[in-house]
Amino acid sequence: MQLIEISTRERTVMVDITGEVEQAVTASGIQEGICTVFVPHTTAGVTINENADPSVRRDILNKLAEFVPHNGRYNHTEGNADAHIKSSLMGSSIQVLVKDGRLAFGTWQGIFFCEFDGPRRRKAWVTVLPCK
Amino acid sequence: MQLIEISTRERTVMVDITGEVEQAVTASGIQEGICTVFVPHTTAGVTINENADPSVRRDILNKLAEFVPHNGRYNHTEGNADAHIKSSLMGSSIQVLVKDGRLAFGTWQGIFFCEFDGPRRRKAWVTVLPCK
Amino acid sequence: MQLIEISTRERTVMVDITGEVEQAVTASGIQEGICTVFVPHTTAGVTINENADPSVRRDILNKLAEFVPHNGRYNHTEGNADAHIKSSLMGSSIQVLVKDGRLAFGTWQGIFFCEFDGPRRRKAWVTVLPCK
Repeated sequence: MQLIEISTRERTVMVDITGEVEQAVTASGIQEGICTVFVPHTTAGVTINENADPSVRRDILNKLAEFVPHNGRYNHTEGNADAHIKSSLMGSSIQVLVKDGRLAFGTWQGIFFCEFDGPRRRKAWVTVLPCK
Repeated sequence: MQLIEISTRERTVMVDITGEVEQAVTASGIQEGICTVFVPHTTAGVTINENADPSVRRDILNKLAEFVPHNGRYNHTEGNADAHIKSSLMGSSIQVLVKDGRLAFGTWQGIFFCEFDGPRRRKAWVTVLPCK
Repeated sequence: MQLIEISTRERTVMVDITGEVEQAVTASGIQEGICTVFVPHTTAGVTINENADPSVRRDILNKLAEFVPHNGRYNHTEGNADAHIKSSLMGSSIQVLVKDGRLAFGTWQGIFFCEFDGPRRRKAWVTVLPCK
């Protein structure tokens, strides 16, 4: 298990961690298998989406904010109920296949840590399991 | 593969199954790897979220009900189309890393079976894969 | 890693790929483990849901279209911002447990490739990891 540390500067932001995950895969020495990225937070998530145009990330965050407004009416009274709901919608983990010692990705795919209650210091954990 | 059995008493409810999953990890004897929890139902799901304040679960269920009302207009005529849609939004499986023979979790994380068409007798399956 | 090729004929459609995934599991020769299906596209996804009544798929696609309209206002200007958002909501991968050399599924579960920006030629990759 390898640790990625992320410092977020806004309340909601998607941070590209593809390079850090790729390094963890290289460090594992595994040539073929599955890489799992897990986020140990209940007000953050992780997703795979377009790595080229940053406006895609803004559209995702805007749509989530429209669906789950920060200042909506919630039972949870810590002011971050929206962040918990977004966390379950995006999910706490992603998987990517590993081939020839690298992430087997589509051309436009990147891995994004989703901060929904920042700014904070956050973590993501990476594990690679071999095929055989 | 180990079996967890869940009896739900309401139409929609999130049931904390963290303890049962932890037991399955212990029983596997695996020290480092990945634990997968899979739900073999199309009107239920599984998610990871806050284990402390139960109001977080109510907020998640309320928001899903607002988005996908039980009595909305659907093509599927069995009266549980909302449950099928919620199932795909939450997902049928979660992964948690395993370290030192235990779930490697964040402080506030728990695993929740999401019942969307209860009350019913339900199952979840747990498998642990070793790192090496 | 095994390749599934999918040709979609509509802009949005859910294509049942359960049979192809089952074949990949058989070809792997693995008796017990976990099967991962990964979609290397940022305007498509993969989900598990009911395999019997096709109206369930229509309800899922209709609800996603209501939430994320094709012609809504987005920052991304390629005309497929909705498809990117839906991709993150459904997810890029699914896991199914493998037992006795077959997918360990619920009776009504199928695996569906989710096209959100077709028609296109698409891919899904399948990997099976053994339990021991």
